Amino acid sequence: MFASSSFNLPNLRSKPTPFVPEPNPKTPRSSSISLHVNVEPPSKSESEPQAGKLKGSPQLKRWSRARAIRSGRKLDRPSHESQVAEVSRPVHPRESTNEEPGTATAGDGEARLEVNMGKSIYMVSDGTGWTVEHSVNAALGQFEHCLVDRGCPVNTHLFSGIEDVEPLMEIVKQAAKEGAIVVYTLADPSMAESAKQACKLWGIPSTDILGPITEAVASHLGVSPSGLPRGAPGRNFPLSEDYFRRIEAIEFTIKQDDGALPHNLTKADIVLAGVSRTGKTPLSIYLAQKGYKVANVPIVKGIELPKTLFRIDPEKVFGLTISPVVLQAIRKARAKTLGFSEQARSNYSEMDYVREELESARRVFAQNPVWPVIEVTGKAIEETASVILRLYHDRKHRCSMPRISKLY
Amino acid sequence: MFASSSFNLPNLRSKPTPFVPEPNPKTPRSSSISLHVNVEPPSKSESEPQAGKLKGSPQLKRWSRARAIRSGRKLDRPSHESQVAEVSRPVHPRESTNEEPGTATAGDGEARLEVNMGKSIYMVSDGTGWTVEHSVNAALGQFEHCLVDRGCPVNTHLFSGIEDVEPLMEIVKQAAKEGAIVVYTLADPSMAESAKQACKLWGIPSTDILGPITEAVASHLGVSPSGLPRGAPGRNFPLSEDYFRRIEAIEFTIKQDDGALPHNLTKADIVLAGVSRTGKTPLSIYLAQKGYKVANVPIVKGIELPKTLFRIDPEKVFGLTISPVVLQAIRKARAKTLGFSEQARSNYSEMDYVREELESARRVFAQNPVWPVIEVTGKAIEETASVILRLYHDRKHRCSMPRISKLY
Repeated sequence: MFASSSFNLPNLRSKPTPFVPEPNPKTPRSSSISLHVNVEPPSKSESEPQAGKLKGSPQLKRWSRARAIRSGRKLDRPSHESQVAEVSRPVHPRESTNEEPGTATAGDGEARLEVNMGKSIYMVSDGTGWTVEHSVNAALGQFEHCLVDRGCPVNTHLFSGIEDVEPLMEIVKQAAKEGAIVVYTLADPSMAESAKQACKLWGIPSTDILGPITEAVASHLGVSPSGLPRGAPGRNFPLSEDYFRRIEAIEFTIKQDDGALPHNLTKADIVLAGVSRTGKTPLSIYLAQKGYKVANVPIVKGIELPKTLFRIDPEKVFGLTISPVVLQAIRKARAKTLGFSEQARSNYSEMDYVREELESARRVFAQNPVWPVIEVTGKAIEETASVILRLYHDRKHRCSMPRISKLY
Repeated sequence: MFASSSFNLPNLRSKPTPFVPEPNPKTPRSSSISLHVNVEPPSKSESEPQAGKLKGSPQLKRWSRARAIRSGRKLDRPSHESQVAEVSRPVHPRESTNEEPGTATAGDGEARLEVNMGKSIYMVSDGTGWTVEHSVNAALGQFEHCLVDRGCPVNTHLFSGIEDVEPLMEIVKQAAKEGAIVVYTLADPSMAESAKQACKLWGIPSTDILGPITEAVASHLGVSPSGLPRGAPGRNFPLSEDYFRRIEAIEFTIKQDDGALPHNLTKADIVLAGVSRTGKTPLSIYLAQKGYKVANVPIVKGIELPKTLFRIDPEKVFGLTISPVVLQAIRKARAKTLGFSEQARSNYSEMDYVREELESARRVFAQNPVWPVIEVTGKAIEETASVILRLYHDRKHRCSMPRISKLY
């Protein structure tokens, strides 16, 4: 794996007992970023909000800033006054400085720009890391009321492909220095135990995401888990029918996007109909990733819908609708991105036009009462997908307790 | 939410203490599928493999079968002789019959076709269910050595949008009848507690996926979790910059697919280059879902590559390579799907041609040593994506401990 080989460490996978070095933060053993930060044991009052006391390496701050820039967040408007400290000079990459904690400095000459750092969550995985990322993401959904815009930002750091105990220990040490918590998915029981013990020694809270569910499944099946990380030899991904089905679904859906080939609607598993900017494309792609062939048909005022749409099995068609106010906001953003001039297509995001177009969609839906109409306002793509798949499977299987079943 | 409203039950969300009805399997309260199955307490020796003793409702069997048919699995070749029992007559939808346990019958007249049922895992979520599905999926990765092809199949059943205690109790009851385990993500603590207590009462092993990580984050931030499921009022999905960025990335990537607009390579965050069937398209789409604009450039023997490819920042270009044997197998499957005649494009999957094309790609990669070349043989799309993103962020941030950081 790339990440572990970039550490140039010997492979310790066969080590049977967990290896946990003594905490010794004063003498870091490698040239890792831990060299550049103040070394202090994590504060005892870690569980209280204490925004100004966070530690962060210069690299970490640059990454946060780079991310903030990419996401378009405004950097010259500090979101948390108490957390902003001025730095006296520009910081250059790889330069070893101890900056004010709790801020990220702008690299190369923009001394007054800072971003809020937030509390850190270290996510460690021996595989792709998507499971731990997904779980942490879901948990963070429970704290929406206090994340970045409410002054309690969280920084997650994903370390994937960690298959050896030495990089694992480096990460735990770094987490201790940053006052981070550690969340991990490590298939090898001795690695998981090492992570647990090391975090205990360093006084860091840690959570094992994969362990409990793996144990439950093991005892349910009466079979021991393999203990092999995803990328391990012997766990090669087989070219299963499921793999080909997913790829076929993705390719079908891309070709089919935006009503491109209406005569192919018959071949789709799911057909989405809705006006522009109801999220048909990202929704189609999300469903395609799950193995469903999706076609989508745009409803545009004054343009006739393809006849095929009314000839195919109506049980596979789903209408999408949205609040006119939200749709207008989305369309305005879209028009800006596309660089529409004020004249050309100006009505695209005008409220009257938006309402009329939604009304014409409503009439189409009313004429086809078998199509479920899904309200997408305020829903993430994943949520709308979940509603559609629940209905899809329910209609297919006609059961009183809707569920999606899968054979492994 | 759809699933819970389809139960037509009163909303009990405000109930402060967990509601756990007494187990009384002899008198099911609703017209759910539990009416149609033998009611027996789960066997005591549940943890031992006992393939022949599984219970399943007729619906469940039909779903398994439907899924097996969709996935193209051969049904007339039983994978587990001991689990196959003959059914004497065709089974019709919604018909209430008690069939031989451990088999799924073919509906409507195909009496001799059966599929292996497997042990059940019930996944219960108050939201989309993707977190619990993702986690169970990852855990099942630890049992690849014993899943369907090795005679120890597992059936997962996803119940999403479960926001009320009554459908929750129905599900637990049904799980008890099927000898399933229950894995859940329930944001409302009283719902989670109800699930736990009910499973305990019924003697079903249960695992809370979201609870431990949510608690860890809560104590790290010093903030209480909201306890609100994803679809709850007040948890509306905001139209964040992240949302628009993801959609833009998906739309860019679709338009860019398969080298369609080479002059746009400059705008991409990541550019993938590789011969046909190295997984460029599904990989592009996977990365796009994560918010990266991806372009892909097919390397075809004898066709000149777009000049832009060599002018753009080489640090964002990734080469894909694959074993010729595996590539040939994939291309053969592809050629069959596309219905290539034996004459037309026959060399596409011929070993000599496959080797030559890979060799021409290798030469291109050798001339561009900055491009990392990623071996995709035996890797799932998610794995290759993980490797690419690790390298991408590492190159961007030049740190000694590769990670992907994100601000929430």
